[in-house]
Amino acid sequence: MALRVGVIGGGQLARMMIAPAVELGLDLRVLAEGEGMSAGLAATAVGDYRDLDVVRDFVKDVDVVTFDHEHVPQTVLRALVADGVAVHPGPDALQFAQDKLVMRAKLAELGVPQPDWAAVHDASELRAFLDEHEGAGVVKTPRGGYDGKGVRVVRSADDAQDWFTALAEGEALLVEELVPFVRELAQQVARRPSGQIVAYPVVETVQRDGVCAEVIAPAPAAGDRLVQVAEGIGRSIAEGLGVTGMLAVELFETDDERILVNELAMRPHNSGHWSQDGAVTGQFEQHLRAVADLPLGDTAPRARWSVMVNILGGPQDGSLGQRFAGAMVEHPSAKIHTYGKDPRPGRKVGHVNVAGDDLDEAVYIARAAAAHFD
Amino acid sequence: MALRVGVIGGGQLARMMIAPAVELGLDLRVLAEGEGMSAGLAATAVGDYRDLDVVRDFVKDVDVVTFDHEHVPQTVLRALVADGVAVHPGPDALQFAQDKLVMRAKLAELGVPQPDWAAVHDASELRAFLDEHEGAGVVKTPRGGYDGKGVRVVRSADDAQDWFTALAEGEALLVEELVPFVRELAQQVARRPSGQIVAYPVVETVQRDGVCAEVIAPAPAAGDRLVQVAEGIGRSIAEGLGVTGMLAVELFETDDERILVNELAMRPHNSGHWSQDGAVTGQFEQHLRAVADLPLGDTAPRARWSVMVNILGGPQDGSLGQRFAGAMVEHPSAKIHTYGKDPRPGRKVGHVNVAGDDLDEAVYIARAAAAHFD
Repeated sequence: MALRVGVIGGGQLARMMIAPAVELGLDLRVLAEGEGMSAGLAATAVGDYRDLDVVRDFVKDVDVVTFDHEHVPQTVLRALVADGVAVHPGPDALQFAQDKLVMRAKLAELGVPQPDWAAVHDASELRAFLDEHEGAGVVKTPRGGYDGKGVRVVRSADDAQDWFTALAEGEALLVEELVPFVRELAQQVARRPSGQIVAYPVVETVQRDGVCAEVIAPAPAAGDRLVQVAEGIGRSIAEGLGVTGMLAVELFETDDERILVNELAMRPHNSGHWSQDGAVTGQFEQHLRAVADLPLGDTAPRARWSVMVNILGGPQDGSLGQRFAGAMVEHPSAKIHTYGKDPRPGRKVGHVNVAGDDLDEAVYIARAAAAHFD
Repeated sequence: MALRVGVIGGGQLARMMIAPAVELGLDLRVLAEGEGMSAGLAATAVGDYRDLDVVRDFVKDVDVVTFDHEHVPQTVLRALVADGVAVHPGPDALQFAQDKLVMRAKLAELGVPQPDWAAVHDASELRAFLDEHEGAGVVKTPRGGYDGKGVRVVRSADDAQDWFTALAEGEALLVEELVPFVRELAQQVARRPSGQIVAYPVVETVQRDGVCAEVIAPAPAAGDRLVQVAEGIGRSIAEGLGVTGMLAVELFETDDERILVNELAMRPHNSGHWSQDGAVTGQFEQHLRAVADLPLGDTAPRARWSVMVNILGGPQDGSLGQRFAGAMVEHPSAKIHTYGKDPRPGRKVGHVNVAGDDLDEAVYIARAAAAHFD
């Protein structure tokens, strides 16, 4: 019988696991948040992932559990583990992706390079941090942020007063130095429960308004040292945190050639969508291999350059299908991936991958194809 | 709302349409022959494709109908067309894939190069043909053959007596000259209802016991003339027969540099499985684009060489998953596609694709990975 992989969450990441699951012969089952989700084709249950009874009912028919997102509460995760369910990544690893303060403390313990940071409980603690960092910092809510939400650049301790007011007794915010980075990078690795790790080439990511807009793989002008340091950071974190499945490490590259860890994600990640069409083993296939504890696949690029451009928002006038056809007519080499989601301002509704020998041409085609959806 | 594509037949070809349908945002629905078929994930109905009521019930919720195989009776197909259903390929085209005598007559009319052939109603007509062709020929039942079934090399008119006996009044067998070919090739093209055609590079196919065993893309040592002639034949047949969707033309290459049409298939074909991992647009995605009348994708290879090796039979001892893991450990660059079918002697249960710059290495890896399933 086929190995049954249960995915909690029915978004586009779960959706993009369907294709490789079919080819790998895995029986993919999704617990979706509602009807008509992105991964609806593989949904075998609908319900609230915060409800232990719902999750227990879902996982009784699967061999291994993984995730579309990192929001399943620790109480639920730990109950599953206590039940004897194989959960990848497990709660011990996921806590570091769920709480940025816990993550910062662990990376410090591991000696992984990261921005200066502090846990601040009130405006006076924040003021002290800002005073030591040229009056500026990035304040983050430790939990629940994504795509730029829960992140704020501050130049005064008053700028975070609303967030301090909302804190419960004993809770803190995270403040980090405002890193003078020259560009952002992302390093992905995959790790199996049995310990095997493979690394993808480090990529350059371009964010707009806190949301990933473009990715170039591999990162242009990345020298051997950069590639090795980035891969080393990815491997150290995967091992040090006991990650199973795909791990994405978002990185800052500074003008003084330092690489600092920005964020972590323990699942397939937007920075790795290029690999669907640009690597021998795409990240969704790799994640499935890793969580099912199957041998990992080759991470080699299929082309000199791969470019990914997100389709954000999409047309509000019902013309999505027409736009798609228009992009296909003009850009037959563009691989357009749709998420089956209704367009909404700023929402990720798809992405375009283009691979080729000429970076400028690949960037042009990917942007031009994505622009059909504006 | 997503365009709904209905596939009649739940075998591996329908299964392999699932992955690209997800990425293209098409709503794929399959009429399967039974429970637990290869394409079960997308099955929305189970029933007999020869039963018009069953098929009518299935197609009422789809926008376009296509096929996993060519066995749907003309009466059913023509009733659907009369109902106003979009059927691709349509019955006018499919008749040439369903009846080899009708196909031979049409290709003769189009002037497409093919072996000498004749319709023979009895042993004396067959004897007359053999006498004109050095005493040898290939006899085929016009309908229902596949993977070497319904095909027999004869050296005496008596060798086909059982088939003549089984013929109904007025029916005939097809006899063809025994072509002294040096190798077999396959040319694939895709054609949209609106007329757009794209061609894949011609590939070399290796058959064992009448079943496709290996494919090398593009065909080694194929000069410009060969490539152009093969593509021209593919385009002529797609246009001349009004094919919509993928068309595969199996070809003989003779030692005197002729290319002759052997067989046709109007659907994704084993000779095109390499394109899943080796071309910018795989044949399953291309078939969906074509039948949905969406712009066709780039057919360019992603690598210098692609090699496909079929997994035939598979282990009978329940160790399929274990073999799979063994192949993955040793060959991380091999893309292994499983069909979710129970192993059975000679049955196609999966295939391996390998792409690379070195043909010998790609052949070695693909064969070695496939050998794990012996």
